[in-house]
Amino acid sequence: MRDYPIGVFDSGVGGLTVVREIMRQIPNENIVYFGDTARVPYGSKSKETIITFSKQITQFLRSKNVKAIVVACNTASALAVEVLQQENDIPIIGVVKPGAKTAALTTKNHKIGVIATEATVNSNIYDQYLRKMNDKIQVYSKACPLFVPLVEENWLYDSVTVEIAERYLSELMGYGIDTLVLGCTHYPLLWHTLQKVVGEQVQLVNPAFETASTLKQVLESKGLNRLNRKNEHKFYVSDGSEKFKAFANRILPCDVMETSDVNIEQY
Amino acid sequence: MRDYPIGVFDSGVGGLTVVREIMRQIPNENIVYFGDTARVPYGSKSKETIITFSKQITQFLRSKNVKAIVVACNTASALAVEVLQQENDIPIIGVVKPGAKTAALTTKNHKIGVIATEATVNSNIYDQYLRKMNDKIQVYSKACPLFVPLVEENWLYDSVTVEIAERYLSELMGYGIDTLVLGCTHYPLLWHTLQKVVGEQVQLVNPAFETASTLKQVLESKGLNRLNRKNEHKFYVSDGSEKFKAFANRILPCDVMETSDVNIEQY
Repeated sequence: MRDYPIGVFDSGVGGLTVVREIMRQIPNENIVYFGDTARVPYGSKSKETIITFSKQITQFLRSKNVKAIVVACNTASALAVEVLQQENDIPIIGVVKPGAKTAALTTKNHKIGVIATEATVNSNIYDQYLRKMNDKIQVYSKACPLFVPLVEENWLYDSVTVEIAERYLSELMGYGIDTLVLGCTHYPLLWHTLQKVVGEQVQLVNPAFETASTLKQVLESKGLNRLNRKNEHKFYVSDGSEKFKAFANRILPCDVMETSDVNIEQY
Repeated sequence: MRDYPIGVFDSGVGGLTVVREIMRQIPNENIVYFGDTARVPYGSKSKETIITFSKQITQFLRSKNVKAIVVACNTASALAVEVLQQENDIPIIGVVKPGAKTAALTTKNHKIGVIATEATVNSNIYDQYLRKMNDKIQVYSKACPLFVPLVEENWLYDSVTVEIAERYLSELMGYGIDTLVLGCTHYPLLWHTLQKVVGEQVQLVNPAFETASTLKQVLESKGLNRLNRKNEHKFYVSDGSEKFKAFANRILPCDVMETSDVNIEQY
């Protein structure tokens, strides 16, 4: 099984920020990525729907013989990881728990802000994990629904984006947070703009980094880490493979030569 | 068949602006609405996917015995109406053709702007219809992907929305357009902001008005117009019926008492 690939999925392109981290930290591993571009975004949808979609994708990835699955989408991590873990006999790793762990280790004043999609914020999942780690921690959450379309418009450093970020973040800043979790995989692409808006005294946390570390530990502890260096990654989407490829090539450290369309509703 | 309802569908809530017009112009008719809230938005997706989704929804609406279908989504109208018309023996009416007709009758200088989703703009459909009506007409199109999330955030009159609208529209204004088609059913909710940005010399066109008129004519010409005044409308969505109901009650002239969830992928 060592040579089997890692399955990674997201509602669309955002999960590629997690893939980038995995490629950096455990470059031997092969990746089978699935982006649900036909049904993106997940952040405004119900728990039931997100679980249904996540199960279909897990079925698809398992048909590709993956040895572990990374749920590289905060919304699906928040709402579906537990169900997937119960129903599967391979490791299923979400981004929320690793992100929460980093935030708990980062904060000094125990005031943590979380920005995420509406569905992730409503799930209260960061709050639950963070309080379990340290009951002194106060969590302040804010849904930022315009950030995903702003990233997809590629207005990463735009004055409009700065103004919208100021609007969304002013309330959290008022609580005196010293740590801000980027609780949606699109948000790390806004890193510089967000850092400018919150100032240097606030530490930004990108859950992707800790997720890749967790994956590395899990693989090593189970003797599943791949030893061979030659890579063959595969990218699948439910719609618009050409558009996806262009985006992937902007953010990944390797060339994405080919992407395939999948009819995910069949799984 | 006179007493059968009209089927209306959209990728989400935007089509309710068309329902509102139908209720105003032909109040006798009953409506069965389907909003594809689990897979919204359509505007960034491929033609193939939009045709698949539109066929599933048409199957669902026909299972409710509708006598005609209004495709109250510009993207689906642009990409799927012809296929649906070929495969169905009831009237299928899109919003694009009626919208183009109004714009052609409105313009004086033959310079028409069209704002819409990426998929609608790329389809060139407004351009094709408008030039067929009058070959002197010049069409200038612009995709405005942030407008839908701004409407869903309810920032209808916000300074940020004004700034984004100015950014999107400055190019079209530079061409000297005297008519602007709101080529996405969400955009009429931004009417006042858009009118402010383009100034009083530019006429805004809402295709919903002309779509309802077209529907009225088609029903009358086929003897399908309903004579009974007592209404019973039905609303279905693929996700989040409670959230949909709240939105519907903000914009429709009648109370939306009940909405139901449908597993649309089964159709």
